[in-house]
Amino acid sequence: MKVLILGGDGYLGWPTAMYLSRRGHSVAIMDNCLKRSWEQEVGVEPLFPIHTLKERLECWRKVSGQEIHLFAADLQDYSAVQASLDDFLPDAIVHYGQQPSAPYSMMDRDHAVLTQVNNLVSTLNVLWAIQTVRPSCHLIKLGTMGEYGTPNIDIEEGFIEIEHKGRKDVLPFPCQPGSFYHLSKVHDSHNIRLACKIWKLAATDLNQGIVYGIETDETKLHNCLETSFHYDEVFGTTLNRFCVQAVAGIPITVYGKGSQKRGFLNIRDTLRCVELAILNPAACGEYRVFNQFTEIFSVSEVAHLVADQARKLGLKVRVQVAENPRVEAEQHYYNPTHTKLRDLGLQPNYLSDVLIKDMLRRICQAQERIRSDIIMPRIRWDGRRQEAGFTAEQGTPAETRNVPVG
Amino acid sequence: MKVLILGGDGYLGWPTAMYLSRRGHSVAIMDNCLKRSWEQEVGVEPLFPIHTLKERLECWRKVSGQEIHLFAADLQDYSAVQASLDDFLPDAIVHYGQQPSAPYSMMDRDHAVLTQVNNLVSTLNVLWAIQTVRPSCHLIKLGTMGEYGTPNIDIEEGFIEIEHKGRKDVLPFPCQPGSFYHLSKVHDSHNIRLACKIWKLAATDLNQGIVYGIETDETKLHNCLETSFHYDEVFGTTLNRFCVQAVAGIPITVYGKGSQKRGFLNIRDTLRCVELAILNPAACGEYRVFNQFTEIFSVSEVAHLVADQARKLGLKVRVQVAENPRVEAEQHYYNPTHTKLRDLGLQPNYLSDVLIKDMLRRICQAQERIRSDIIMPRIRWDGRRQEAGFTAEQGTPAETRNVPVG
Repeated sequence: MKVLILGGDGYLGWPTAMYLSRRGHSVAIMDNCLKRSWEQEVGVEPLFPIHTLKERLECWRKVSGQEIHLFAADLQDYSAVQASLDDFLPDAIVHYGQQPSAPYSMMDRDHAVLTQVNNLVSTLNVLWAIQTVRPSCHLIKLGTMGEYGTPNIDIEEGFIEIEHKGRKDVLPFPCQPGSFYHLSKVHDSHNIRLACKIWKLAATDLNQGIVYGIETDETKLHNCLETSFHYDEVFGTTLNRFCVQAVAGIPITVYGKGSQKRGFLNIRDTLRCVELAILNPAACGEYRVFNQFTEIFSVSEVAHLVADQARKLGLKVRVQVAENPRVEAEQHYYNPTHTKLRDLGLQPNYLSDVLIKDMLRRICQAQERIRSDIIMPRIRWDGRRQEAGFTAEQGTPAETRNVPVG
Repeated sequence: MKVLILGGDGYLGWPTAMYLSRRGHSVAIMDNCLKRSWEQEVGVEPLFPIHTLKERLECWRKVSGQEIHLFAADLQDYSAVQASLDDFLPDAIVHYGQQPSAPYSMMDRDHAVLTQVNNLVSTLNVLWAIQTVRPSCHLIKLGTMGEYGTPNIDIEEGFIEIEHKGRKDVLPFPCQPGSFYHLSKVHDSHNIRLACKIWKLAATDLNQGIVYGIETDETKLHNCLETSFHYDEVFGTTLNRFCVQAVAGIPITVYGKGSQKRGFLNIRDTLRCVELAILNPAACGEYRVFNQFTEIFSVSEVAHLVADQARKLGLKVRVQVAENPRVEAEQHYYNPTHTKLRDLGLQPNYLSDVLIKDMLRRICQAQERIRSDIIMPRIRWDGRRQEAGFTAEQGTPAETRNVPVG
């Protein structure tokens, strides 16, 4: 199948492009590397050096013998989006092309507006381009479990049957997103649902949990093919960040009580889920939602899982509570349904001690690149900006970094 | 109280400003008359000549002895919004400042994007400005009953208690908006709800039905104070448009079966509802929703109510079915709750034969200004553009306009 990956330069987009290319799909990427400029702006960088997208594509050609075509264009540029669809005529579009960070969206008014306008306009452009140029194309949009928030009932996959005053209907599951970024994903979901209804487009929304992991079968083929692994407060995600803290010899910091529960999945499962969606497309006019995660952990549980494995590698680690920069429920019910992808054949790669150890070992190889000053949260949801840097209580200076034995 | 009206040049904003000013509130308007440029763009104009906003304000000063201050600024200009709040220090903000037309938002990609970006950024700017400059200010945002769509259960006021698999929660009422404009209002609602939660702002969302009417006590004081009454396919609303069709001697056109049901209210009740929200503010941190309409009619019912009164005035009228340019359910259940505003004291001005007759008579006075070529829908939800102009079957040429006896 012909698959166009929007945001194919990113943490998930790039491994997805290689994964699908290796499986015989004809793959193209659309990306203008805008995310790299946001990293520059906030002064962070991925743990492992990332080559330019052109170098990666060239390397992929040499290593795999497969060509991935690049449309170096901004998704906010509608004529470029239309032209690319018209040129490539994709059967499926995988839409990762967004500002992906909640803290980035909460920095100030400008970043809230940038996030929502960027994400909203990108998705509107994609919808209008599909409708005008390639209406048969299946849109697979990456959403987030954060769209639902943490209601006191089981979260269903996108829709819920509600019985109310003796009547019934199946309605969109009520959303309670917790940041301007998460809101942008909800806005997108609403826009896509209407487009499916009025234009008979086919779309799958993958409401994804927190992704962890460094490697896939393809990123391991050559160091030029590695993916952009973030551990900073802006673009880093929970488990990944904890592993880096463990290696850096600074406390693993849990926001608030740490009893917040979230769905998690391995980066390899992200690729498989996307593939399953592509191979089993939504029907014409259908907007469907899959909850895409494989396990539920509390943030504390994850912290201790990482700490345990780090200790086994001889690292000195401590789990520490940090003031929660977010406004979120720290004690809550959480039992989201996630059967649809398994029904399609997903066989999860569960979080294991071995995997955590592998991650820690891999991070140790880049230990000198870790900047512990970019990990602790300064961006607060309540509008106050936290003081920059570490205090003596918060962490250990970089000079006394862990030297792992494992 | 000090009340800032965003979009105070509009059909509802202007009468609201005068109404509140007359009741002793200190009123300011923020508007850059952007909507007038959208009217120019699509080639329509209000039925009655509308003076410039400055002329209206000057006239109001002379007629009422009251001053309404003007901030001539674009809501998308954040520093202007901040500066105005800092200058005026409002106790309440009434937010009408949006692109208000569903058909306008469905014209093409550019108008969909303009609508969503304009409305979203405006509201984000207002939220951030309140949070930074005037956190005690009560935000009253005009929403629409169209945010809910037409579910097969009773629509509640913003929130619904859901019992699911033995557990319960009160959650946002699921929304199924039917145009990119209606979506923009849902996006706004979500953004406001989060701002109330994380910043402890106070907000009231008035999910309004279809407003009809030409006059309020204040617009009648001087012809320079009239409000911008639209009857065209883009900015005109159902009942208002039907009255103009009746006077113009062209068929009253019902989209599709006409059994679509909607909530309606008199323009005078809009002003009273806004006043009630101002006088009974939301609590700090509270986001509440009132369903703001007084009666439910099907579109056909409204067409026949207008036709009956028009005939009594000696006008020759016909109700005719037109192909529905929208994608919407034409047969559906509709029973939205609307008790909260009545609990606060709203005494509805119900739709009456007398009122319809008054409207028809008033429209007759401007009969020569009616342009029947701007009434029939050309903007279609399915992306196809309808042929412009009337066919012999669709309408009567303008030359054979009705000459009313009444």
